[in-house]
Amino acid sequence: MEKRLISGIYRKSLLLIGESVNYINKHLPKSKVVVITDEKVYNLYPAFFQPYEIIVIGRGEQIKNLSTIAYIYEKFIEYEVDRSTFVLGVGGGVVCDIAGFAASTYLRGLCFGFVPTTLLAQVDASIGGKNGVNFNGLKNRVGTFNQPGFVLCDPAFFQTLPGKEFRCGLGEIVKHALIADAEMFEYMEKNVSNIVSRQPEVLQQLVADSMRIKAEVVNRDEREQGERRLLNFGHTVGHIIEERSTLTHGEAVAAGMVVAARLSQQRGMLSDNAFNRMITLLKALSLLVECPLTSTEIIDGLAWDKKREGNGLYFIFLKDIGHADIEKVPLSQLEVLINEQ
Amino acid sequence: MEKRLISGIYRKSLLLIGESVNYINKHLPKSKVVVITDEKVYNLYPAFFQPYEIIVIGRGEQIKNLSTIAYIYEKFIEYEVDRSTFVLGVGGGVVCDIAGFAASTYLRGLCFGFVPTTLLAQVDASIGGKNGVNFNGLKNRVGTFNQPGFVLCDPAFFQTLPGKEFRCGLGEIVKHALIADAEMFEYMEKNVSNIVSRQPEVLQQLVADSMRIKAEVVNRDEREQGERRLLNFGHTVGHIIEERSTLTHGEAVAAGMVVAARLSQQRGMLSDNAFNRMITLLKALSLLVECPLTSTEIIDGLAWDKKREGNGLYFIFLKDIGHADIEKVPLSQLEVLINEQ
Repeated sequence: MEKRLISGIYRKSLLLIGESVNYINKHLPKSKVVVITDEKVYNLYPAFFQPYEIIVIGRGEQIKNLSTIAYIYEKFIEYEVDRSTFVLGVGGGVVCDIAGFAASTYLRGLCFGFVPTTLLAQVDASIGGKNGVNFNGLKNRVGTFNQPGFVLCDPAFFQTLPGKEFRCGLGEIVKHALIADAEMFEYMEKNVSNIVSRQPEVLQQLVADSMRIKAEVVNRDEREQGERRLLNFGHTVGHIIEERSTLTHGEAVAAGMVVAARLSQQRGMLSDNAFNRMITLLKALSLLVECPLTSTEIIDGLAWDKKREGNGLYFIFLKDIGHADIEKVPLSQLEVLINEQ
Repeated sequence: MEKRLISGIYRKSLLLIGESVNYINKHLPKSKVVVITDEKVYNLYPAFFQPYEIIVIGRGEQIKNLSTIAYIYEKFIEYEVDRSTFVLGVGGGVVCDIAGFAASTYLRGLCFGFVPTTLLAQVDASIGGKNGVNFNGLKNRVGTFNQPGFVLCDPAFFQTLPGKEFRCGLGEIVKHALIADAEMFEYMEKNVSNIVSRQPEVLQQLVADSMRIKAEVVNRDEREQGERRLLNFGHTVGHIIEERSTLTHGEAVAAGMVVAARLSQQRGMLSDNAFNRMITLLKALSLLVECPLTSTEIIDGLAWDKKREGNGLYFIFLKDIGHADIEKVPLSQLEVLINEQ
């Protein structure tokens, strides 16, 4: 097991990488624990939940809304949750986002931790302290920055993950390699078949690398004033695709990375060779999908993007495998480039 | 004008005591400003609001709920609020609590400031960084800790305040004197008639003293882990009274202070003389009301109190004029004392 620390403004977050969920009690406080999970995870591991007060929520992006948060508040009242209660989110990214927001706002903030059960949640949603829900169909419109006390990542969960969810996680792993670690990218190129066959040691390595990259970035810029925006590579367009299509988060981000990399190529920032290596890896991991939106739809979405500040948009360009760059670009310039694609 | 700084974990909060609202522009950023206010304040000062995008909400404790927050999020979308937008809450405590929570959770946190228009809001709700709404009738059940960028306190607002609202603020001012400043209490005793006639210099002095006391406590313990609990003097019982009666916040807190002071007397912590001085001042300020709840109702409410942690309850006892003490007391002990009253 590998430990890594994220130092948030409010509290430190301990990442427990490769820890078995059977040792969860070592990491929980002695006070009352309320677990938030979803129907599927609850039915898969009934024995795990037995010692705790349980709140079971539905599944999917559509339940990530204020009604679900209100339902959790009601259960908190029923369970007589007080300021000493610890909230544990066990599930995928949706569960982590919801549990983190409910815990951060009930009684002005309870302590909480996560057991992410999907590859995507282990490498992305569970770490970094972003939480929240969608509002009126707009992704993550409402939420806070607040670090979980711990994140326990058990590789045992990967073996039963449906292919689509597994690929979702791979999309974020490729993103981490692309923006920050050329060696990790090469490792993935060499291990494509091991990744696809879910070889535990290889996955463990990729999760640890992803967490290291994300933790380092978040430690330097928790509140996304600068460098943390790098993690949005592929997400500016990816979120628009996710909002307006039936693609999963991972597929939408992969499509968004392709759009962003092509824009980088058009601006002469990225070599054809690097672009092609990215496409080849995404293809080998079954992550290459056509962008289902027209240029007009993307531009329309960008105009609404929440990360827009004042006139321009912080856009993440790829400079090489392992190197990305943040640039504030006028919307009009992105429009021209996107229309050229 | 007197300036005072609160150093929150996330950001510093600048208190502008005695500043005219006519100079608001000196304190606003150049980016877009969205103002949240209530119907009454909006109708009283239409010219003030003219330059801004405005969100007008209803009045009273009953609109302090998640539906109002959702309404504000919808207006934020309509006004194309982005991360550079500044949110200004102009109104009483309800407006400040709501505006602070909406701003703290939209896009994971916008910058915001307050212009409190009531005496109560100037000496209490607007400072200290607590925000939030009620949930299922339970007071402040949902919210965050987050400091406003500035709080502009203009004494001009006091002259038009209805008597009931004016007395509400006086209740918190008496509380500040009781827990922390015997001299301030004496000043109030000597100036009863000037206070009642709203003599501007006297009110200005009391607001400045209150802000100093609250700012000092919050600076030492923003997240209410210890000393900040002193500010809850009279509030543990006061909140229960407010939830279960038609008394205003100020009246309920005054009644709660009387209950807490009587408990302190029963335990031999507070002299009869100090107790009587408190009663005399509350009476002179028309703040002395009978507690409208039975002992059983108070005990029942305490059992649910959100500040209960584990077994006991952090209760604030009065030791003397100007001195209060926090003690974790078993609920059973409070029960015995309350039943004796």
